[in-house]
Amino acid sequence: ALAAPAVTSSLPDIVWRLQSSFPASLETIHGSAEAMARTIAALTGGRFRIEIETPGHLAPGAETLDAVRNGAIQAHQTCSYYYMDLDPAFAIGTALPFGMNARMQDAWITDGGGQHLLDTFYANYDLVSFVVGNTGAQMGGWFRREIRSLPEIAGMKMRIAGVGGTVLARLGVEPQQIAPEGIYAALADGTIDAAEWGGPYEDEKFGFYKVAPYYYYPGWWEGGPSVHLLVNRPAFEALPELYKVALRTAAGQASHEMLARYDVRNNTAIRSLIDKGVQLRPFPTDLLEATYKASFELYAELAAEHPRFKAIYEPWKLFRDQIYQSFRVAEFSFESFGFAQQAKGL
Amino acid sequence: ALAAPAVTSSLPDIVWRLQSSFPASLETIHGSAEAMARTIAALTGGRFRIEIETPGHLAPGAETLDAVRNGAIQAHQTCSYYYMDLDPAFAIGTALPFGMNARMQDAWITDGGGQHLLDTFYANYDLVSFVVGNTGAQMGGWFRREIRSLPEIAGMKMRIAGVGGTVLARLGVEPQQIAPEGIYAALADGTIDAAEWGGPYEDEKFGFYKVAPYYYYPGWWEGGPSVHLLVNRPAFEALPELYKVALRTAAGQASHEMLARYDVRNNTAIRSLIDKGVQLRPFPTDLLEATYKASFELYAELAAEHPRFKAIYEPWKLFRDQIYQSFRVAEFSFESFGFAQQAKGL
Repeated sequence: ALAAPAVTSSLPDIVWRLQSSFPASLETIHGSAEAMARTIAALTGGRFRIEIETPGHLAPGAETLDAVRNGAIQAHQTCSYYYMDLDPAFAIGTALPFGMNARMQDAWITDGGGQHLLDTFYANYDLVSFVVGNTGAQMGGWFRREIRSLPEIAGMKMRIAGVGGTVLARLGVEPQQIAPEGIYAALADGTIDAAEWGGPYEDEKFGFYKVAPYYYYPGWWEGGPSVHLLVNRPAFEALPELYKVALRTAAGQASHEMLARYDVRNNTAIRSLIDKGVQLRPFPTDLLEATYKASFELYAELAAEHPRFKAIYEPWKLFRDQIYQSFRVAEFSFESFGFAQQAKGL
Repeated sequence: ALAAPAVTSSLPDIVWRLQSSFPASLETIHGSAEAMARTIAALTGGRFRIEIETPGHLAPGAETLDAVRNGAIQAHQTCSYYYMDLDPAFAIGTALPFGMNARMQDAWITDGGGQHLLDTFYANYDLVSFVVGNTGAQMGGWFRREIRSLPEIAGMKMRIAGVGGTVLARLGVEPQQIAPEGIYAALADGTIDAAEWGGPYEDEKFGFYKVAPYYYYPGWWEGGPSVHLLVNRPAFEALPELYKVALRTAAGQASHEMLARYDVRNNTAIRSLIDKGVQLRPFPTDLLEATYKASFELYAELAAEHPRFKAIYEPWKLFRDQIYQSFRVAEFSFESFGFAQQAKGL
């Protein structure tokens, strides 16, 4: 006979507090943390509960990592590169410009040695990490005017976060750090000339197309950014084994589902944006070549200055170069041929 | 205080028997079922156990689906297209030639309406389905001699399974059905001229490179084949809710991890094969164009004859065409540029 499931009182009640870096309006990413928490509760008879909060609710945005480190809260759903000012090595776990696509990034972290490298680094901050999603390759952002060649970006003010901003600064752009809720107004009133956030689905929600009609691609600084769960290490280690397995398994499922949801929603949104008159533009080749060169020059400098960056970057770069080569064989030739045929209406 | 986890006696002991279509020597795919079973056991205090068996152990290979339908066993890890002779609609859940890559396939099934379409179809067989992995784009197989243009394949005997074989038959190839353990000998003694199995990692294990030096790409018939768990519906519905959640969550994790493992191992294996003197060759363009055309002609015929195929194929085709277009923007331009730069040594 099949009885209702129940867990005994020997399983402790544990409540974690998790702050997301993403507002609840971005339900694809914030909602993924909520779904993961529901799964973990279901797997533990409701005994291990994770309360999901929005940015600033439990700790000011920039102080969230500290709150996890000191145990004030237990977990943080974030892109680790938001903390690159602390150490540039924080950038690698999310994405480096001209780095890997979502699938390569997953391969590197899950089975290519990346998880060990990241956790060795995070141990310095008393953190453990779990990949809990990826957005896929992002777009290059919204420009108020058309950019036809590299020199035209000199002096532009662009809202862009992370390493991509550092690279663009070397080519004359003035990168601006603006929190999500302020981007639209700054772009609308001309305080900035351009802004990037993510992919078509989220960008359409922000309404950027209303004030900056040129939508560039690709987002070469985020070809496949991972979303991470950063967890206070002592809190994780104190969990009963069942709760650890529940967390790991739910994280794997979240990774699988977040990317699928982004892909489906971006597919619909890009069609909707084109219907609204958005002008899609590829970045000029001279801009891509210059930013590619500047990116790897930057990494070489960072590796020379920051041993922790170097320890992750060097094996990351080798893996990236090799998997680029292997993906060019079956994956890329399959896509190239099929895309070309489909574009011909075949 | 944190006590050891335990589940009460109100959780029933349930043992399922699962037969895999894949031998234990293919540990990337067979091992994924074993890992999933370990996770499910860990999540249920060892009360829900799934025993994983190799092909033929519980039922003869071709009769495994019947054994699940009639409840003799509860689950089957397989590529559903092995059952396309029963109904061609079984092919779509795995892959159709010139269909989707792994990520598009995941997007379609997980969030693009595919799961509902597949389960509506599987309900005719008293089955429910879970995606539990993907191999990524496969290679085009091993050829004893070089193929420089379409006419050269006429009269060739090639070991190839599924819809790809049906397409090639229309162009003069004689497709051969040979179980994995017999392929090497048939290729070695010239009984067949060519053979495909999967990607570099598994193909290297089989040793095909010793007897057929030309290794073609891409495997246009399997650009991103999903691996499924097919489950007896009454057995699934009788599970306690906790066990259902454990199964779903572990399936999501397995999907995430299998692809990563294939990508890492294929990356190493293709390098190893090249070191061994394997000659990599892209399929001739006229062959790809003819097989592309023949594939979609075949699908139109199947849709006209088989209502269940049509019910899945038409929304699948629309999704495929649209996501091809959206992936060409950020994803494909990111890869194209990066791959080209890296190939130049930059």
